[in-house]
Amino acid sequence: MKTILSRRHFLNLVGAAGGSTAVYKTSMALGLMQESGPMAKLDLQDVSGRRKTIAILGAGLSGLTIAYELERAGYDVTIIEASHRIGGRVLTVRHGDTVDEMGQSQVCNFDDDPNLYFNAGPARIPGHHRRVLHYCKTLDVPLIVKANMSRPAYTYEENQFGNKPQRVSQYLSDARGFLSELLHKAVDKNIFDRPMSAEDLERMRLFAKSYGDLDDGGKYNGSLRAGYKKDGFVRPEVLHDPMSFDDLLNSRFWERGLAASENPDWGEPLMEIPGGMDGLIKAFVQNVKSPIKLNAQVQAVTLQNDGVDITFNRKGKREKLSVDYCFNSIPSHFMNAIHNNLPAEYMRGLNALKPGHGYKLGLQMKERFWEREGIYGGMTFTDQRIGQIWYPSTGIHSQKGVVLGAYQFFDPSGFFERMTPTERIEYAANCGDKIHKEYSKYIESGVSVAWGRMNYMMGCGAQWPGDSRERFYKMLQQPASGRHYMIGDQISYHPSWQEGAIGSAEVALLDLDERVRAANKVTANG
Amino acid sequence: MKTILSRRHFLNLVGAAGGSTAVYKTSMALGLMQESGPMAKLDLQDVSGRRKTIAILGAGLSGLTIAYELERAGYDVTIIEASHRIGGRVLTVRHGDTVDEMGQSQVCNFDDDPNLYFNAGPARIPGHHRRVLHYCKTLDVPLIVKANMSRPAYTYEENQFGNKPQRVSQYLSDARGFLSELLHKAVDKNIFDRPMSAEDLERMRLFAKSYGDLDDGGKYNGSLRAGYKKDGFVRPEVLHDPMSFDDLLNSRFWERGLAASENPDWGEPLMEIPGGMDGLIKAFVQNVKSPIKLNAQVQAVTLQNDGVDITFNRKGKREKLSVDYCFNSIPSHFMNAIHNNLPAEYMRGLNALKPGHGYKLGLQMKERFWEREGIYGGMTFTDQRIGQIWYPSTGIHSQKGVVLGAYQFFDPSGFFERMTPTERIEYAANCGDKIHKEYSKYIESGVSVAWGRMNYMMGCGAQWPGDSRERFYKMLQQPASGRHYMIGDQISYHPSWQEGAIGSAEVALLDLDERVRAANKVTANG
Repeated sequence: MKTILSRRHFLNLVGAAGGSTAVYKTSMALGLMQESGPMAKLDLQDVSGRRKTIAILGAGLSGLTIAYELERAGYDVTIIEASHRIGGRVLTVRHGDTVDEMGQSQVCNFDDDPNLYFNAGPARIPGHHRRVLHYCKTLDVPLIVKANMSRPAYTYEENQFGNKPQRVSQYLSDARGFLSELLHKAVDKNIFDRPMSAEDLERMRLFAKSYGDLDDGGKYNGSLRAGYKKDGFVRPEVLHDPMSFDDLLNSRFWERGLAASENPDWGEPLMEIPGGMDGLIKAFVQNVKSPIKLNAQVQAVTLQNDGVDITFNRKGKREKLSVDYCFNSIPSHFMNAIHNNLPAEYMRGLNALKPGHGYKLGLQMKERFWEREGIYGGMTFTDQRIGQIWYPSTGIHSQKGVVLGAYQFFDPSGFFERMTPTERIEYAANCGDKIHKEYSKYIESGVSVAWGRMNYMMGCGAQWPGDSRERFYKMLQQPASGRHYMIGDQISYHPSWQEGAIGSAEVALLDLDERVRAANKVTANG
Repeated sequence: MKTILSRRHFLNLVGAAGGSTAVYKTSMALGLMQESGPMAKLDLQDVSGRRKTIAILGAGLSGLTIAYELERAGYDVTIIEASHRIGGRVLTVRHGDTVDEMGQSQVCNFDDDPNLYFNAGPARIPGHHRRVLHYCKTLDVPLIVKANMSRPAYTYEENQFGNKPQRVSQYLSDARGFLSELLHKAVDKNIFDRPMSAEDLERMRLFAKSYGDLDDGGKYNGSLRAGYKKDGFVRPEVLHDPMSFDDLLNSRFWERGLAASENPDWGEPLMEIPGGMDGLIKAFVQNVKSPIKLNAQVQAVTLQNDGVDITFNRKGKREKLSVDYCFNSIPSHFMNAIHNNLPAEYMRGLNALKPGHGYKLGLQMKERFWEREGIYGGMTFTDQRIGQIWYPSTGIHSQKGVVLGAYQFFDPSGFFERMTPTERIEYAANCGDKIHKEYSKYIESGVSVAWGRMNYMMGCGAQWPGDSRERFYKMLQQPASGRHYMIGDQISYHPSWQEGAIGSAEVALLDLDERVRAANKVTANG
């Protein structure tokens, strides 16, 4: 009689040996608990002993994901990275780090303090980014809640509101108030296309009153939601006067920031990795044993009948690698300059994809002056070219902090790219002075990342102009000749987000696995 | 020639000895930096050597604040606390703690793990609570960002939406959408009372489109803001169908939760103290040297010509304390049962004030199932009597977590108070099962605090019915006979918030200081 070890019994044994965390992890492994997302469902066939070789071009998040998963399925993996570092656009800059910008490299002069850092790439993780969260969980990467929208922070627009920054809470509250007042009026005038019962109309009035904090007559007279004008703790609360509806409409905060936290990717709560977003990269590196060849620039990608040849320069020498499959996260706009025999339509697709030009600036502030204004994390919005100011969610009440002094998703005119690093700091300092008193005096040092000028990347967050995504996306998700996969956030519906990068890896891994399983069947039957 | 040590020079010396943090703290002490709020502006006259004696009744947050400040000004302070513990309604419950409820004390059976705790009292700190934040900063109490509103969490109402929980993001998005659609229609029908230019009307249409995510025709057809129906990362995003406006109005989420984060006290970002909100109490205890007499129940408060006599029972014995000034945070509704000679009108004021009946339940969950639903902190709303479910913002991706399984601000009918602790857990489990699949199966243990039944308190968050605040508040902020101060969140415009408790202490301290300074002048002149 065979001894059958039931899953439950096995778990009891694990519990006795390793405690509840061991039970938990083993339960996950045995599939007894709900999955943590798409990546947990990967079930790659093990190819150990069959010497399947893999080249991964680019040691960013998509490449590391491929390496991690294929290593575990018995593949023989080599990673080739053009730059001096691992992580790609997942970049946390700290004291002493070099920012490898074309023609003007910077060294970060922040204090040598693990709490003073700047996430130049991804900085936020929402709860529905299941793939990123899966790896944070699997690789024991800690997560904390990050403030994103902040009601006490400001919106500042030149030539609006008397050139004075307005608290976000004031704008949000007044916008709701005026909108609700109009709804209330619309109900009174019964402008609806269909007949409404008296009860329906009354319910809508109540809804409007609640939504906008209106008085019983349906008027908005300001609201405590705009924040306390004066202390409401030991004396009666005093309300702010509402903005005028004209001022509110003249301002463009309603298109700039009013809906910011309505986007699911920016909606509360968000998370971040304490100590810097490259914590996930570090965790991958600890768990990937495959060689990662740094400073290795790919020169040629050649499809062969039964694999792919990769030629690259490294330390002045040309090296060649022949593999069964290649996973390529090189920015699409570089592929023209790399010798290749990829199909013409495939190259047309890669050429259609345009690099984005994101820009971020980190400023070390000698005091956390924003906390004295009641701001604890989150962001200020402005129509100045710096776009936003982010206040750190961590290190509350410590002496110093790193503020994101500028954030442009797109800088197509190269406005910041053309500046020197010092000019960028000065520009941001002047903008900041219009929002915070003596902002510029608090700046101790700054470091900027203009992704469009970063060596070996020259761009970020790929753009799909016109109908290019409809034309090429599905094809680019498929491997050229069944051997060469394009990956990276560029091959996703979420460029510039980590979830897009890992998603592209998921699609490629599933496709590879299907091909390998199919080939095995043929071999077994043949 | 005297050697004058300039402030700047002094700071340089401090810097050499203690580093930048020492400089920072000394700068604060010297007033060279902006203040951190009202409490930083307290400038109590030092009475050292003049033997001013103080009795503080109640070792909660208001009493500890008084003790901390008066000790530093040279007063001789004694604190008398009726219960077995320090902290009052600032209560974090952990493994092994006793919850001292009338007739049915509970012992908390959470795992012996510092990450598993339950804040039965205050749990959130907003950025404008300057008094609380001042002490967190001064006493080195760490703070982290806390998720409060959560878009991926649910609203669940019995008999609404087919008895299915709805994601908060869906409701928020659809409410904005429908409201904006109506605004757009109101613009088209030009229902405004004043003439509007074509430009104004067009701007309002744009505002409405942006606010509600409407199509070009001004219609709301659902929005990505409601969350992803299907993955939008490697495939095109798919939108949820919008709720019907009727369903949305029939539900009462618009009065229950839709405005929750609009209240400045609940608006993002909020903070909490990692490890439990009693971290601030612990910090006070470490910094207060005055004796704190526990298990000491006040029996009499007697105003004398030149002070106050306090009589209390302790360990079966009656003790008496005669002091110059008394600060009394005893719940107002107990004062009738304590012998006193407070003025009749003063007692009428105390009797007008009614104790609140807040209720919270903490549940240790054996798995963090909510994270698998994309929920990372924040709260679910329900019209069931549990009111809300809160998910922890800390310990993300660890195995277990403590959920707030019920939160009623007011439980005037005593619904939960009348239950046994076990019945409360069962009730909450049944409610939770309607929102989360197999919610009840994850519950390992629970502990509840029904403030209306807690010994030595029998209430929380004082209510001021009718016009009682207008009638009595100012008088109760003044000391009876210039000697007896009522304090606590009950004497504030913010009952049940820590900021109210400390605010009451601020008012009392300022009044005392004024009296002491005036008396000194008289003595000096007399």
